Amino acid sequence: MEIDQPATQKKDSLFAPGWGWLKALLAKSTNKAVKVAKTTKKVGQDDPRRVIHSLKVGLALTLVSSVYYMRPLYEGFGVSGMWAVLTVVVVFEFSVGGTLSKCLNRGFATLFAGALGLGAQHLASLFGDKGEPVVLGLLVFLLAAASSFTRFIPRIKARYDYGVLIFILTFSLVSVSGYRMDELLTLAHQRLSTILIGGATCIIISLFVCPVWAGEDLHKLIASNLEKLANYLEGFEGEYFPDSDSTSEESTVTSKVDKALDLQGYKSVLNSKSTEESLANLARWEPGHGLFGMRHPWKQYLKIGALSRQCAYHIETLNGYIDTDIQAPLEFRNKIRESTTKMSSESSKALKALASAIQTMTDPSAANNHVEMSKTAIKELKIALKDDSVLENVDLVAIIPIASVTSMLTEITRCVERISESVHELASLAHFNGVEPTVSPEKPHLLHRGSIKPVLDGDDHDHVIITIHATNMQGSVLENHEIRHDQAPKASQLPATTT
Amino acid sequence: MEIDQPATQKKDSLFAPGWGWLKALLAKSTNKAVKVAKTTKKVGQDDPRRVIHSLKVGLALTLVSSVYYMRPLYEGFGVSGMWAVLTVVVVFEFSVGGTLSKCLNRGFATLFAGALGLGAQHLASLFGDKGEPVVLGLLVFLLAAASSFTRFIPRIKARYDYGVLIFILTFSLVSVSGYRMDELLTLAHQRLSTILIGGATCIIISLFVCPVWAGEDLHKLIASNLEKLANYLEGFEGEYFPDSDSTSEESTVTSKVDKALDLQGYKSVLNSKSTEESLANLARWEPGHGLFGMRHPWKQYLKIGALSRQCAYHIETLNGYIDTDIQAPLEFRNKIRESTTKMSSESSKALKALASAIQTMTDPSAANNHVEMSKTAIKELKIALKDDSVLENVDLVAIIPIASVTSMLTEITRCVERISESVHELASLAHFNGVEPTVSPEKPHLLHRGSIKPVLDGDDHDHVIITIHATNMQGSVLENHEIRHDQAPKASQLPATTT
Repeated sequence: MEIDQPATQKKDSLFAPGWGWLKALLAKSTNKAVKVAKTTKKVGQDDPRRVIHSLKVGLALTLVSSVYYMRPLYEGFGVSGMWAVLTVVVVFEFSVGGTLSKCLNRGFATLFAGALGLGAQHLASLFGDKGEPVVLGLLVFLLAAASSFTRFIPRIKARYDYGVLIFILTFSLVSVSGYRMDELLTLAHQRLSTILIGGATCIIISLFVCPVWAGEDLHKLIASNLEKLANYLEGFEGEYFPDSDSTSEESTVTSKVDKALDLQGYKSVLNSKSTEESLANLARWEPGHGLFGMRHPWKQYLKIGALSRQCAYHIETLNGYIDTDIQAPLEFRNKIRESTTKMSSESSKALKALASAIQTMTDPSAANNHVEMSKTAIKELKIALKDDSVLENVDLVAIIPIASVTSMLTEITRCVERISESVHELASLAHFNGVEPTVSPEKPHLLHRGSIKPVLDGDDHDHVIITIHATNMQGSVLENHEIRHDQAPKASQLPATTT
Repeated sequence: MEIDQPATQKKDSLFAPGWGWLKALLAKSTNKAVKVAKTTKKVGQDDPRRVIHSLKVGLALTLVSSVYYMRPLYEGFGVSGMWAVLTVVVVFEFSVGGTLSKCLNRGFATLFAGALGLGAQHLASLFGDKGEPVVLGLLVFLLAAASSFTRFIPRIKARYDYGVLIFILTFSLVSVSGYRMDELLTLAHQRLSTILIGGATCIIISLFVCPVWAGEDLHKLIASNLEKLANYLEGFEGEYFPDSDSTSEESTVTSKVDKALDLQGYKSVLNSKSTEESLANLARWEPGHGLFGMRHPWKQYLKIGALSRQCAYHIETLNGYIDTDIQAPLEFRNKIRESTTKMSSESSKALKALASAIQTMTDPSAANNHVEMSKTAIKELKIALKDDSVLENVDLVAIIPIASVTSMLTEITRCVERISESVHELASLAHFNGVEPTVSPEKPHLLHRGSIKPVLDGDDHDHVIITIHATNMQGSVLENHEIRHDQAPKASQLPATTT
């Protein structure tokens, strides 16, 4: 019994002679072209700033090329003019932070390595005509090996990788080539000024033509990740308790596709670590812009990101239960449905409130209420489960999946609480709108009476030492907090007495 | 009540005058230096190949620099000699795949862009003296913008990013600068031959001096990730049921620290995606080496990696329960302990068997038995829980955590089964030692009698069509499988009859 080759086995048509082969090839390449066109279109639609970035690169390169092209400038710079073109191609990055970091890395590395190269050359020349090449070779070997090794150090890899590369390059070129050229200083001057032209062009275009800020991207990414988690938790209720009264039959059908999309959104949070870290690294290079100050606490975003990922891991496990048949008796489900639903919906609302607080850079305390409600739901669930009637006629195997779901939702709720704490921390660190500068964010419930004593130690800064005699709400224990405030005006808002 | 400044507040000492300040500064910088030295040492110890790589870079650069330095060669190449140095610095990567991919990208992009640049120059010259700069500028703008945009397409970003960069660079340089130079072809020749010298030096050193293979690294990473998961599951048993009879009190105490380390190992699996993908991308550029053929199925490693991560997510959630107090009554725990312990230990053994099969590239079927055992354990658990006496005197709130743990272990067991399947697939694709070429890896339990009919269609390959009349174990349904084997000798090992 032999069946015909399935139509899907397209490869075979390659071996059919002549026309069929050509036809298949044409069809294949047309298919491929359509696919490529679609991918390209999608890449542009996903983030239209990519199209703008490409035009910006074209603009910068055309500008710098024309400098190289024009005779008067060309004669001034010599062959060095090409370094301007090279700089633009290599240095222009998608974000302002990327471009700035590469420009600064390139600039400082070139200067430093150039100076060192000159020194090396001078040192080598002391060893006579025969010793010189040996000493130069040794120096190049040592510096190249040592510098290459530093590129493995995570901190340097993250921030100065490009600088080290340029350092090795420039040092080798200067120390070795300088020997042949009498006018090394002229050359250095030419090269530096062309690099400057290239770098300045990149920085100006990147800063002033539709700038893309890595910091802003990180800010938005963190907020949208929280929102994705919230969407899952919002949709979860309807998916896991499809017979829930709150949604009518019709609306469930129509929005099913949208919901499925929403539910899968959290998956991208699972692998967001490297993106977040690289954005945070680039953001450090950016000057203050919009609502983000020069010392915006980018590190705090990474903390929130790590907690979001933790939450996403739990959701990933939870998601494994969504398609299993619920075998638990209806009675049992009804018993726990209310509190479970409340947990997921309140956690979802809390996350949404936090996401919108980050987005608008306003006080995130709107989330507190939802966090409290979700914590109450945990307690309610426990009470519901303590009810003895729950266990009547119950098959343990049947209820284990649903019990696990409640347990995981509890974990997620706790995770959301931690996320809320760290968003509050961010709000206080970044001075979000309407956020009072908390003196001790960890212990906001202390009653305190305090004293402020200006420290006049001849220093430039207005240092203020605040001594707070805090009485714990629970009783008689006195706690002493001594806090330094570098911003006197804010500290002075506190009630002040002299000791 | 004012207390003294705590000793930890080191910043204050900066404002104390004179000696103290200097002392603090010295202590601080000594601290920092020690820290840096320790980090550096650790970076080297973590992977000694990093030290070797640095020395290799030094060697390559010294060799190429001396070519530049020596007069006869220098006069032959002119200033272009520096391109050899530049190529070495930019192209030399840690792995063979990285170096090869950059060299090939650079070489082909330079050639292609050079030719295109010459064409552009010729085209522009047709527009007369006034039109030429405009046309050239336009061409540079269009090509730079279009090429920059392709760098956002994930597939190109992953494999040809560097090539596109070099393409933009070379095209701009050739099309614009060529206008000034009469001897463009001489220059091109010089530049290409110097790039060739640099590239060849890198490739030779990278291939023959302690080569680092990205493919081998990926292979080892996947195996060690499986082992990390296995270590967790092995340790989990002892951590979650510390009163287990199998471990004596003493050994528990001594190995506690080691175990804690083992248990945290899985965390690195959570974020392994980007490393795995970049290694797989580099591995594609590498020639066959050691036990890895030219067409080694690197993609299959990514599949195993994805499943391992899935498993790690579940373990991460499971890990949240490890420190919670177990409130479930001893009776209940004893009831489920055996099957739970069996699940985790058999899964662990299966993973270890799979990891060692990958490492040694041998038949992974030793894992099958453990997978079957862990599946049996799931059934045993269900039976144990079905026992009515389990629910007597049970507080549901108290048993939910432990019930969730069993549920998650069940998920993990299923995950391990999927991992096992995909490792078997890898073994068959990569022709591991002692692996029979399975006809249908998804359905290994089919009884089949088959027929092999060589296809002689004048093609170079030895195609064999195997028609298998498979009888499903469950009954009378006949399934037809038609499979193409590109390797006739292996296919002929199957029992052959003519239809």
